[in-house]
Amino acid sequence: MADVGEFGLIGRLAEILGEPTSPDVLVGIGDDAAVWRPRTGSLTVATTDALVEGVHFDLATTSWTDLGWKALAENVSDVAAMGCHPRYALVALALPGGAPVDGVEAFYRGMHACATRFGCTIVGGDVVRTAALTIQITLVGESMPVADATDRPLLERSRAAVGDALAVTGPLGGSAGGLQLLLGAAPIDGSATADALIAAHRRPMPRVEAGLALVGAGVRCAMDVSDGLLADVGHICERSGVDAEVDARLVPLYPGLDAIFSERALDLALTGGEDYELVCAAPDATIKRANALLGEGGQEPLTMIGRIVARSGDKPSVRTRTAQGALVEWGAGGWDHFRAENHD
Amino acid sequence: MADVGEFGLIGRLAEILGEPTSPDVLVGIGDDAAVWRPRTGSLTVATTDALVEGVHFDLATTSWTDLGWKALAENVSDVAAMGCHPRYALVALALPGGAPVDGVEAFYRGMHACATRFGCTIVGGDVVRTAALTIQITLVGESMPVADATDRPLLERSRAAVGDALAVTGPLGGSAGGLQLLLGAAPIDGSATADALIAAHRRPMPRVEAGLALVGAGVRCAMDVSDGLLADVGHICERSGVDAEVDARLVPLYPGLDAIFSERALDLALTGGEDYELVCAAPDATIKRANALLGEGGQEPLTMIGRIVARSGDKPSVRTRTAQGALVEWGAGGWDHFRAENHD
Repeated sequence: MADVGEFGLIGRLAEILGEPTSPDVLVGIGDDAAVWRPRTGSLTVATTDALVEGVHFDLATTSWTDLGWKALAENVSDVAAMGCHPRYALVALALPGGAPVDGVEAFYRGMHACATRFGCTIVGGDVVRTAALTIQITLVGESMPVADATDRPLLERSRAAVGDALAVTGPLGGSAGGLQLLLGAAPIDGSATADALIAAHRRPMPRVEAGLALVGAGVRCAMDVSDGLLADVGHICERSGVDAEVDARLVPLYPGLDAIFSERALDLALTGGEDYELVCAAPDATIKRANALLGEGGQEPLTMIGRIVARSGDKPSVRTRTAQGALVEWGAGGWDHFRAENHD
Repeated sequence: MADVGEFGLIGRLAEILGEPTSPDVLVGIGDDAAVWRPRTGSLTVATTDALVEGVHFDLATTSWTDLGWKALAENVSDVAAMGCHPRYALVALALPGGAPVDGVEAFYRGMHACATRFGCTIVGGDVVRTAALTIQITLVGESMPVADATDRPLLERSRAAVGDALAVTGPLGGSAGGLQLLLGAAPIDGSATADALIAAHRRPMPRVEAGLALVGAGVRCAMDVSDGLLADVGHICERSGVDAEVDARLVPLYPGLDAIFSERALDLALTGGEDYELVCAAPDATIKRANALLGEGGQEPLTMIGRIVARSGDKPSVRTRTAQGALVEWGAGGWDHFRAENHD
C-alpha cells in the first residue's frame, strides 16, 4: 500500500523525531510495527482522533508547527482525561499532492515538541496521498500501577454519583477566546492578555499531571473539556445515568476573557471547546484531598462549579444557575434562552 | 472536535461490534480512551495504516464489507509479520457527506468478521467528515511471553544474516491475479480457480498462526509480502545490511495462477502485492524446526526460495535466478530486462 514517494519523506520525518529516548521502545519506525515493553502492573489506554483540513483546522489561522502540537495535544488530553501517562504515538498522515515538504516537516517538529513536553514517543506511522489533508493520531498510554486485579486507577465518564461535587482544573474559555480574536471578532491589541488567549488556542496544554493527581487522590470520574464545558458535563451525565447542576457564577474565566469579551466571556467559558482542562465529579472530601495533592505538585487547586444530582427525566439534563439566580436547562431552547438572557 | 452527526452513527456502529468479549477490555467505545489489561510478560506491538478511496481501493471493485475485512487484515498482517497476537484495534473513519450509512455499517460488519477470525477486539475510534473516504486503523498486538529482560520474541526486518535461507509461508500472486481478473485482464470463467484468486484479493488471510510458529521455532527475521516479494525482500536487505538471491524457479505460485496467466504468473508472484504470506530469513536448521512446528499446527511447511548473501555494493541488491539460470538484479533496468525475458 506504499506510495511512491513515501519512503523518502518518512526518512526525513524519522530524522526530525530522532532515535527514541525511551529505553522501553525496542523497535521504532521502519519495521512492520513498533514494539515497546509495557510497564508492569499498569493498564493500557488508547485513543485515536482524526483531523481534516477545512473541517477541524484551517492553515490560514494555524501554522504547520502549531497544527502538529495541537493534533498530538488533543490525544494527550484524552489520555490525561483517563488519569494516565501518555506514552506511544502512531501518526497517519494523508497528504494532498501539493502539500509542501517543509510544511510537513514543521508539522512533525510541532508534534515532536509536544511529545517531548508530555513524555511520549512517536513510534510509527504511515504517509499516504489524498485530496484533503487528514491527520490521524493514535496515542497509547499507561495507568498508574494497579493495586490488585480489581483496581481501576482511571478517570471514567461513567463513575459520577449523585451528591458528587463538579470541579474543574483551571479557567475556561481561553482557546475559544483566542480563536475569536484570530477570526476578527475583537481587535488583537498586542496586549499580554490577547497573546495569552491566542497561545491558549494555538498551543493548548493538556493537564497530564493534574489527571494523575486526581487519580492519586481517589477521583474516579473526569473528562477533558474538548466540546465545551456544558456539553462535556452532559457526556458524563449520559454515561453515569445522572443529571448535573452547574453554577455559572462559579465557573472560572480565562484571565482577561471578560475584559475583552465582556458579557460574551461566560458564553465562551461554558460552551467554547478545546480548553483541555479536566472536569471531574467526586465527593467533597475527595476534592479536598485532590487539592492537597495538586498543591504539593505546584499546581492550582480545583474550582468547584456545581453538583451531580439524580436523573430527573428520560434524557440526561445539565442545568445552569445563571447570575440572576434562575436555573436554565442547557441544550435546545433552554440554552438559547440563556444566551438571550446574557446577550441582550 | 465532534461532528454533528457523529454520536448517532457511532452508536449504530458500536451495536454492530457488540460488547467486547475479551475479559481484558476494561473500557470500550464511549469514554475518552479505551482501556485494557496488558498480558503480563509480553511486549506490545503497534501498527497504523491509512487507506484512501481512489488511491488504495475502489468501491467499484470492492464491496464495503470486503473493504472492512481488508482494511483490518492489512494491519493484522503487520502484527503477524512481527510474530505477535493481534489484540486491540482503533478505527478512524473520515467520511464524505454522501457516504451511505448502510455502506458504513457493512464496512463495520466486514471489519468485525476479520477481528473475530483473528482474535482481536475493536475498542475505539473516531468518525469525522472529509472529501475523500479515508480509513485509518491502528492495531495493537502482544508478543509471546518474554523469557528474560533481553529476550525479543519478535520477527524483525533487521535480523537477516549472511547464509540464512529465505523462505515463504505459502504460494504467492493470488491477490494480484484476482485483481487482474477483476480489472478484466483475463476472462472470469466462473471456475473454482478464478473464484479462489478473486477471494484471495477480496478476503486476504493474514498468517497470524504461522508468524507465532516461526517465533516459537526461533526464527527472528520476517515480514509480510505486502508490496511484492522482491520489493519486500529488498526491505529486509536494507534493514539487515545484506543482499539476497531469490531463485524464481522455487517461488510457489498460487494454485491455478499459471493456468490463467501463463508466463505472466511468475511476474505476479514476484512483484504482485497484498499476498500477506510471510517471507522469513533463518538458518537451515531453524527453518527445519519451524516446519515441524507448522506441521504440528496443521499448517503448510515453509518453501525455501533463496538465500541471504553479503552486501556487494552501497545499496541493497536483490538478485533473481531466472528459469534460464541467469542471475538478474531486481529494480531499475535489471528487472525490466527480466520482465522482457519472461514476456517475449
